[in-house]
Amino acid sequence: MPATVDLNADLGESLGTWVLGDDEALLPLVTSANVACGFHAGDPSTLRRTCAGAAAAGVVVGAQVGYPDLAGFGRRFLDMEPAELTDAVLYQVGALDALARVAGTRVAYVKPHGALYNAVVTHEAQAAAVVRALVELGGDLPLLGLPGSAVLRHAERAGLRAVREAFADRAYTAAGTLLPRREPGSVLHDPAQVAGRVVRMVADGEVVAADGTVVPLDVESVCLHGDTPGAVATARAVREALAGRGVAVRPFAAAP
Amino acid sequence: MPATVDLNADLGESLGTWVLGDDEALLPLVTSANVACGFHAGDPSTLRRTCAGAAAAGVVVGAQVGYPDLAGFGRRFLDMEPAELTDAVLYQVGALDALARVAGTRVAYVKPHGALYNAVVTHEAQAAAVVRALVELGGDLPLLGLPGSAVLRHAERAGLRAVREAFADRAYTAAGTLLPRREPGSVLHDPAQVAGRVVRMVADGEVVAADGTVVPLDVESVCLHGDTPGAVATARAVREALAGRGVAVRPFAAAP
Amino acid sequence: MPATVDLNADLGESLGTWVLGDDEALLPLVTSANVACGFHAGDPSTLRRTCAGAAAAGVVVGAQVGYPDLAGFGRRFLDMEPAELTDAVLYQVGALDALARVAGTRVAYVKPHGALYNAVVTHEAQAAAVVRALVELGGDLPLLGLPGSAVLRHAERAGLRAVREAFADRAYTAAGTLLPRREPGSVLHDPAQVAGRVVRMVADGEVVAADGTVVPLDVESVCLHGDTPGAVATARAVREALAGRGVAVRPFAAAP
Amino acid sequence: MPATVDLNADLGESLGTWVLGDDEALLPLVTSANVACGFHAGDPSTLRRTCAGAAAAGVVVGAQVGYPDLAGFGRRFLDMEPAELTDAVLYQVGALDALARVAGTRVAYVKPHGALYNAVVTHEAQAAAVVRALVELGGDLPLLGLPGSAVLRHAERAGLRAVREAFADRAYTAAGTLLPRREPGSVLHDPAQVAGRVVRMVADGEVVAADGTVVPLDVESVCLHGDTPGAVATARAVREALAGRGVAVRPFAAAP
Repeated sequence: MPATVDLNADLGESLGTWVLGDDEALLPLVTSANVACGFHAGDPSTLRRTCAGAAAAGVVVGAQVGYPDLAGFGRRFLDMEPAELTDAVLYQVGALDALARVAGTRVAYVKPHGALYNAVVTHEAQAAAVVRALVELGGDLPLLGLPGSAVLRHAERAGLRAVREAFADRAYTAAGTLLPRREPGSVLHDPAQVAGRVVRMVADGEVVAADGTVVPLDVESVCLHGDTPGAVATARAVREALAGRGVAVRPFAAAP
Repeated sequence: MPATVDLNADLGESLGTWVLGDDEALLPLVTSANVACGFHAGDPSTLRRTCAGAAAAGVVVGAQVGYPDLAGFGRRFLDMEPAELTDAVLYQVGALDALARVAGTRVAYVKPHGALYNAVVTHEAQAAAVVRALVELGGDLPLLGLPGSAVLRHAERAGLRAVREAFADRAYTAAGTLLPRREPGSVLHDPAQVAGRVVRMVADGEVVAADGTVVPLDVESVCLHGDTPGAVATARAVREALAGRGVAVRPFAAAP
Repeated sequence: MPATVDLNADLGESLGTWVLGDDEALLPLVTSANVACGFHAGDPSTLRRTCAGAAAAGVVVGAQVGYPDLAGFGRRFLDMEPAELTDAVLYQVGALDALARVAGTRVAYVKPHGALYNAVVTHEAQAAAVVRALVELGGDLPLLGLPGSAVLRHAERAGLRAVREAFADRAYTAAGTLLPRREPGSVLHDPAQVAGRVVRMVADGEVVAADGTVVPLDVESVCLHGDTPGAVATARAVREALAGRGVAVRPFAAAP
Repeated sequence: MPATVDLNADLGESLGTWVLGDDEALLPLVTSANVACGFHAGDPSTLRRTCAGAAAAGVVVGAQVGYPDLAGFGRRFLDMEPAELTDAVLYQVGALDALARVAGTRVAYVKPHGALYNAVVTHEAQAAAVVRALVELGGDLPLLGLPGSAVLRHAERAGLRAVREAFADRAYTAAGTLLPRREPGSVLHDPAQVAGRVVRMVADGEVVAADGTVVPLDVESVCLHGDTPGAVATARAVREALAGRGVAVRPFAAAP
């Protein structure tokens, strides 16, 4: 059984006046912060403040890159050409990294957001475009994604570190994929239940699918959702349950 | 008399389908390219293509930072808070620098664009906010601006290299400031006349103001406008005139 | 003493995922809804839902027009040319009216938002530009604004109905203007105190300024803020206090 | 043979400083102007100016509705939910109509733009969403689209007037669909050839496909592209050729 696991969450997704999530409460509970980069959410000052908070809390910063779609919060598939997607990823990582640097940290990994995250599970051209950006940046940044996804496969082929994650509060199918959000029961809300599942994912390497099948799962990080009601309570329950089982919580990426 | 001068122009100001300026023709004629950063103009792929062209032509890349106002092309004053302006500058410089790096170059200086350029001539808080961003980035990037402006004064106090520029095609007042654009004759269109003025600015350190006064001018760079009709012809005339007078044309900032 | 007063509040200021204000709770408490138009806040579906809610609650819909600045929530002055501001107002009113119509109501008045509201108190060109839009639309829509403002003066000269409003939770100066937000005590938070002030404004036509001076005030509408903590409690207190004093609460504009 | 045909073109697609197409030269040559609505192109002042030009030239104005994607010029598929697409269409039509009214005309029809145009050929949910907007607006506006498309089918079922159009400069397949742009020869550039094809489309009701097949075609309008080099010369050639064959050029929609 693994001695450690990383806990990641989406942070820095406010936009000017509009506040999303309780970043202050969530930051001390995670080890990796997927910080928005201004395309699907986040303005420069929010990015900076979030990076500063992460630096102060010893939380590693990742660039949560998305489609340029504030009104849709990056949750709508956008049919970008691969070259323009690569450039959009570079732009976002560079922008966030500048703010991370002045906040005393650096971008240490990349995670696609929302519809882009889902697209690169199967969309070969967009998956390759995201990976190409990381290769062009030097190949040092790990990529966080779904086990079995096209984007992690492309990342491995390109010599990048491909980091597999599970979702704490999502139901799984017997095939080990996520139950679509439109299905009943696809999102779990009970903190104790979620915490129990995370412990089993990490300590035992398995998850019980919606149909009762026990599915093997091999992940280095677990994603906690930050913008749902009860997010903070769930994160606390997960940390306590992991501690109770003797699993250390540590970032997967090296802090700068 | 100075042995050399830098010639700068605004480049990379297209936006997706919309093309602005003849970057390809202008690039070989300048030594410094003020590349848009996506806030007043420019999309990620345009930025990258422009940086690649600059790298290939041996032209130094600067970040042309502006207000977040595509519809207004950054030409409308926006009353941003100093802290959010600082962060917006950091965001833009970081974004462009990532694309410059993959294009084989780096951001080597910063120049404010449009209404921000004009604002920081006198607006102390916004001038200080721009300078603060450069200090926070490490203080290595020179700042290009108007002689006598608040922003150059703040830059010098902060230990930054403050680079003074003249405008090739703009009329001057007897006080050495630019004749406002709304005044008749504020913009000069004759390539030969513009070229003659640039030579006099650089070789003799003076310009003839709109009222006939001879005004002293001490600059390291001259700005050529790229988006006006005849821009390329004017740029060629300027380079030939400088060569004829034995003035070398060289970037003010170190190429990376 | 006036038999009636209108209560207005800003509504429809959410943006996609980002929620602002408790529109559902506030709607039944006001008589006029200043609905955002997508430039400073609001997306098409939010606008439609807000208009439908207003129609169902018998609340009159006004177009809350603003600067094109989502990141700044329209709270930063933008130096738009008068002609482009006029066209921006027309665009916003037309867009909202289409959604209001399918929701069973119509745009029945116009109120500038945020920095535009403040600008047109004194900025003659922008004030005239806003009024010009309403004249061009036919001159039937009343304009809601600050007593003594340039924009209401222009509106009256142009033959528009100029509707004066007071602010329920803002401190006033002895001159009858609003105490700037940066001053201590400029915003009042106690529901009972706010309710008492509104009754005095409406029933007695006066307000006690920050320095204790009693200032005459003649208004047809009172603005309740919707996005502050306690907004709903304050609105309830105001309505009860007005009812207790026998003041009817009615929209100033004709419902469609 | 039909006595008349409509000629439509995309207009008003400039954005602030960025100019696209030669609207002034093209306006007198068409009978219907598909005017951008600010989502894929166009700012409020451009919309107004274009509507005023159309009104002066006796050209009918249509709302060219698109995805909210300026950077992509609306040419990238965006997976909008049907309800939000309906609302986005309503918003755009309302906004343009307000500017059309003050310019002395009205929106008289609707045509989807770019990737939305292509999507609603086959995407049932988005096609239905566009049609729903027109129904909700009262059902009086005709919809211009591709023969055989889902959106025209939905429009007819809903009782709207569905107007079929051909493309003057596009190659066709033997099935009567457009040859994809990525295929060689998909876009025709010779004015005389294009003019000859348009005459045959209109007068004889047929077009020669890329493989030589003669394909029947029954259209009320022909789309001329406005943003390609030679667009104006082609439009002139088309008009002359139609006149030479005795075909009158008239708008399909009633002028307001």
